[in-house]
Amino acid sequence: MLLERLQNYDQSDIYPFHMPGHKRQIELGADAYHLDITEVEGFDNLHHAQGILKEEQARLAQYVGAKHSFFLVNGSTCGILAAISAAVPRGGKLLMARNSHKAAYHALFLRQLHAHYVYPPISDFDIQGALAPEQIRRALSQDEEIDAVYVTSPTYDGVVSDIEAIAQIAHSFGKPLIVDEAHGAHFGFHPAFPRSAVSCGADLVIQSVHKTLPAFTQSAVMHLCSDRMQDQVLEEFLDIYESSSPSYVLMAGISRLVPFLQAEGDVRFSALAEHLREFYEKSKRLCHLHVIQEEDFGRSDAFALDPSKILISTKNCNINGRQLYDQLLARYHLQLEMCSGEYATALCSLMDDPQGFERLADALFQIDAALRKEETPKCGFVAQMYREREQVCSIAEARERMGETVALKKAVGRVSGEYVYLYPPGIPILVPGERIDADFVAEVEEIKARGMMPEGLWDMRAEFIKVL
Amino acid sequence: MLLERLQNYDQSDIYPFHMPGHKRQIELGADAYHLDITEVEGFDNLHHAQGILKEEQARLAQYVGAKHSFFLVNGSTCGILAAISAAVPRGGKLLMARNSHKAAYHALFLRQLHAHYVYPPISDFDIQGALAPEQIRRALSQDEEIDAVYVTSPTYDGVVSDIEAIAQIAHSFGKPLIVDEAHGAHFGFHPAFPRSAVSCGADLVIQSVHKTLPAFTQSAVMHLCSDRMQDQVLEEFLDIYESSSPSYVLMAGISRLVPFLQAEGDVRFSALAEHLREFYEKSKRLCHLHVIQEEDFGRSDAFALDPSKILISTKNCNINGRQLYDQLLARYHLQLEMCSGEYATALCSLMDDPQGFERLADALFQIDAALRKEETPKCGFVAQMYREREQVCSIAEARERMGETVALKKAVGRVSGEYVYLYPPGIPILVPGERIDADFVAEVEEIKARGMMPEGLWDMRAEFIKVL
Repeated sequence: MLLERLQNYDQSDIYPFHMPGHKRQIELGADAYHLDITEVEGFDNLHHAQGILKEEQARLAQYVGAKHSFFLVNGSTCGILAAISAAVPRGGKLLMARNSHKAAYHALFLRQLHAHYVYPPISDFDIQGALAPEQIRRALSQDEEIDAVYVTSPTYDGVVSDIEAIAQIAHSFGKPLIVDEAHGAHFGFHPAFPRSAVSCGADLVIQSVHKTLPAFTQSAVMHLCSDRMQDQVLEEFLDIYESSSPSYVLMAGISRLVPFLQAEGDVRFSALAEHLREFYEKSKRLCHLHVIQEEDFGRSDAFALDPSKILISTKNCNINGRQLYDQLLARYHLQLEMCSGEYATALCSLMDDPQGFERLADALFQIDAALRKEETPKCGFVAQMYREREQVCSIAEARERMGETVALKKAVGRVSGEYVYLYPPGIPILVPGERIDADFVAEVEEIKARGMMPEGLWDMRAEFIKVL
Repeated sequence: MLLERLQNYDQSDIYPFHMPGHKRQIELGADAYHLDITEVEGFDNLHHAQGILKEEQARLAQYVGAKHSFFLVNGSTCGILAAISAAVPRGGKLLMARNSHKAAYHALFLRQLHAHYVYPPISDFDIQGALAPEQIRRALSQDEEIDAVYVTSPTYDGVVSDIEAIAQIAHSFGKPLIVDEAHGAHFGFHPAFPRSAVSCGADLVIQSVHKTLPAFTQSAVMHLCSDRMQDQVLEEFLDIYESSSPSYVLMAGISRLVPFLQAEGDVRFSALAEHLREFYEKSKRLCHLHVIQEEDFGRSDAFALDPSKILISTKNCNINGRQLYDQLLARYHLQLEMCSGEYATALCSLMDDPQGFERLADALFQIDAALRKEETPKCGFVAQMYREREQVCSIAEARERMGETVALKKAVGRVSGEYVYLYPPGIPILVPGERIDADFVAEVEEIKARGMMPEGLWDMRAEFIKVL
């Protein structure tokens, strides 16, 4: 049973270099069922907050410097859906980074929006980089139909874009800027970590507090920071995308964050920064594995890098990201957050234990000692996969016109009715409404040849694809 | 802080005649934070279940007799959104009961659907009754554009419709039947409670397990019972409406239901049935208050009534539903689920304590002794309020064309851009796209004169309304 398996995992000696950010280091203080109630007297209604939830959301807004903050119990997912729905009229156009969470694509579908994509650069380590403010300016100059700008910063890999510059550009065109800061809820509380988009001029910021702060999985917040969007319209869309029976356990977990950070934030973030500094310093002595640091990225690839996401590259040695991830778990009982082609990610938070960093460093040095240098370069494939595609129609139109299923090889020249992506990171390689070209078919074959399986297609073996 | 307030509520002597159905009588066995993880190795992905979540959903399906069951972590809300989205193409038409949860209206809006409403009868106690199968047949005969049928059974008040007959009619027209059984997750396990729509021929059934079973608030399930809808299409829409970081605590709470019911269901449901039987029997001796029983409804008003929702009517005495609710809480520390105009509802579950029923009965007899008979009839207003309205355009069209704000009194003849409802129960009196007539304005005045406030309008004092 799932409950027993969770209890066993908790009892194991596996160290969690993964979400949620609480790292199982805080306590509710009572059995969760005992605190799980509904909207009875004295407990307010999240969808029409007038009591304690109104006060606690206001306290959060004040703490982070927002105009209005919203507790979200359906993850950043519902925040992203509501933000885009509120910012762009039905049938309108969104300027968005191509490396966006699937919720942004779902918002396009639900609201029949058109997308003007900007594609991030790909770094030498096969990691998607930051958006250049100039890319945003160019898109807004060229395309007058754009209603709003949507950017993911930091990315799952911790790559931060220059939100201040992007916000200025968006505002100079009179457009609101939405920032998916799901992976950066811990930003802005300590100088060792990047500033939050909230203080960089973004109009609306969505944060998954469960990812990097001590909060329950599935809990998130949204900060409205300007008058460019209306809180009532946002509330109307949250009312649509979020349960009418919100969990008080999840909400209690969000509401305790402010007092927790006020009481312990400084000490804990300072300790985390120090542990990370030591770890990064030590990791420079690795011979084959490489722990990526901000200086590895050109300024054009990353405006900043979040050090709390430790990216361990296998680019130069004879294992890949999956093999590193598997070895760390099987031999050293270190559960990393994820692995992609040529790297694996250890996710850290202010709840980490110094012992965790020691265990990770020791394991990496032991693994490193058994590796050898790979002569042929192993990166470059990602840049090819995530290249620009020809858009023929909107996602909504493609999904509704989708009819025929054909063998992938016979689909060249046709328009896709389906998504194709790798998970993780879940960023689409191909989006419904985009043209399938001969290179795409070769790319899918290459993905399979590398032992991965493209997801998103109805045909789970990725041999057939639905086309218009 | 919210967490402290929840702890205080748990420590109080207030008896919970309200959701969630666990009544704080089961335990997780470990601090919730310790069991709260993400999709690490061995723990499956709800949106692409291939391991333990696939097995546990299959076990639930087998237990209830469904073809495929889905765990939902965004409440019945996401199930209703996904069900309607999957059953009706964009721009299509849904045959729906007017007394539907707001999520059904939200699905109409998101997918630009047209609604063909059927209006339930209103009983003598001002409670919305069951849908007659004949109403469904008539609608389907008259309107060939209908794509699917959507019915709420039981209602918040426990009124059950004849799902078997409705399913036969829907299927004879080749249409799938979706049943919002959010308030009936406990159906079908014991002869004292109604059958579940799952065994009555419905194609898709949504249940809020937190309402009447021992599960966490915000958790729900959806059962696919036929081949009339495709599970892959449902999954695609759940992927849209549900967090990509689902809570393992909520999912663990759902997954333990089957073993719990297998082990303790028979004994607990039998005990609940017996306590309810005694309570209803005893309540017949009340002089002024009246506990509603199945025989109070004509067969045309309720096919069946769920006895676990105790409806206490104030129709014949000198207090109203709110006053009864307030007295029970203030003097007797009994927290009821809700109150409406002339009744209050105590929600019971298989986790209730015999002492709870005694406390409720004692309190009702004490209150009853101080009441006197009301000579003028107090009901009838509800039937007027929930009467049929003139539909001018779809909700989506109305929301997008909404422009001017006018004084309610000057809105006669105009088309509403807003919802108007009372909460509880949250069923709309007026829907965007419907004509405002002179009687409607009088009804709003009457609602205010009775000390209630219509909700849904931007103008919280309900003096102005947005119109097309």
